[in-house]
Amino acid sequence: MRISALADRTGVPVATIKYYLREGLLPPGEATSRTQATYGDEHVDRVRLVRAMTESAGLSLAAVRDVLAALDDPPRSRHDLLGAAQHALVADEARSDGEVDDVVRRRVGALVAARGWYDDAALAGRLAVLLRDAERAGVPVGDEHLAVLADAAELVARGDLATVPDAPADAARQVVVGTLLTDPVLVVLRRFAQQQASARRADGGQGAV
Amino acid sequence: MRISALADRTGVPVATIKYYLREGLLPPGEATSRTQATYGDEHVDRVRLVRAMTESAGLSLAAVRDVLAALDDPPRSRHDLLGAAQHALVADEARSDGEVDDVVRRRVGALVAARGWYDDAALAGRLAVLLRDAERAGVPVGDEHLAVLADAAELVARGDLATVPDAPADAARQVVVGTLLTDPVLVVLRRFAQQQASARRADGGQGAV
Repeated sequence: MRISALADRTGVPVATIKYYLREGLLPPGEATSRTQATYGDEHVDRVRLVRAMTESAGLSLAAVRDVLAALDDPPRSRHDLLGAAQHALVADEARSDGEVDDVVRRRVGALVAARGWYDDAALAGRLAVLLRDAERAGVPVGDEHLAVLADAAELVARGDLATVPDAPADAARQVVVGTLLTDPVLVVLRRFAQQQASARRADGGQGAV
Repeated sequence: MRISALADRTGVPVATIKYYLREGLLPPGEATSRTQATYGDEHVDRVRLVRAMTESAGLSLAAVRDVLAALDDPPRSRHDLLGAAQHALVADEARSDGEVDDVVRRRVGALVAARGWYDDAALAGRLAVLLRDAERAGVPVGDEHLAVLADAAELVARGDLATVPDAPADAARQVVVGTLLTDPVLVVLRRFAQQQASARRADGGQGAV
C-alpha cells in the first residue's frame, strides 16, 4: 500500500509516519520509484505500536527505540525482557534526579528486602526520587499507604505474568508493550475506584471523604 | 528571601522559577524595589509542588494550573476534589481520541456496572481509548487481566482514602496531589513485583516467565 493508505489504515497522519521513518522507528517501505515506496501489513502493526507507546504510554522516542530493539531481537531470558520494559520506564525519568537523602534510600531498601524483591538499583533510585518528591510536595507517602501500593503491585504482577504466552516473540510483545500500555489503564481504574470508595465511606456515616 | 535563595532552597533553577511566575503558577513575591522581590516559605512550598507535578506526575502546565486552582479554593465536597484529580489526568490525555468502536465502549460500560462504579463519562472515554490502543498495538487486555487490574485499583483506592486527613485544605492536597504523585510509585512497584513474580514462576519449575 502507499503511505496515504498506511495513514488511513492506522489513523496516523502521513507527516507523523514520515517522521517515524526518518527517526528509524519504522523500517523503510519497498521502493517502487525514486520518490515512492510501498508498505505492508507489518508496517501497519509497527505504526500502531509506536503510536500507542508514544501516546498512551507517553514514552519518549528514545525509549520507544529501546523497546522496539527488545522486540526485534528478544532477549533470551524473560527476566531480561522485564528489564527492557523497566529500562524504558526508568530511562525516561532519569532526568529528574538530584540528591536523595539516606533516610529515603534506607526506606526503599527496607521495603525491597521485606518484600523479597530483587534489589534493582535503577528501580530503587527511581522510587527514592518519587518518595522524596512527594514528601517535598507536602504529601509524604506513609508506611501503611506504601504497603497498600506494594500489595496492589504484587497482585497486578501476578496477573501480568499469567497473560504471557509461550512463544518468545509473543511473550516479548506482551511483557514489554502490555506492561507499558496497561500502566495508564491501572491509573484510570484507580480513579474509578476512588470515587466508589469515597461514596462508600460517605454511606457508612463516617462523613464524605 | 531573594529568588536566588528560593532556587537554592528548592533545587529548582532561577530561570524555571521565573517561568512559573510568568505562567501564573507561582504568586508574585513582595516587591522590594523596581526589579527585586522577596519570597516567603509559601513560595518554597508552591515551587516544590509545581515541580513535583510537572516532573514526577508529568502533568502539563494547564493541568497543574487546574490542580492549583482546586487546592487554592478547595471544592466543598470531597467527591468534587476527586474530580479535580481526575480532571488533571483526563484533560492531559484527551488529545489522543479518535473513534472507539461500540464493542470497546460496551466492555467498559459492563466493567463499570459490574464493579458498581460511578459511570464517569470522561474516565470511561479515556479507558475505552486505552483499551483500543492496546488492542491495536497487538496486546489486547483480556477480561481476566482487566479484572486483576480493577481488583488492584480497588485495593489502592481503599488505601488512598484511609490517608485523607480531616482538615479540608489538607484533604485537598492529599487527595489531588497525593494521587497524582503516587501513580508513578505504583508503576515502579509493579516492575519490582513483576521481577519477583517471574523469579517465583521460574522456581516453580514452570519455566521462566
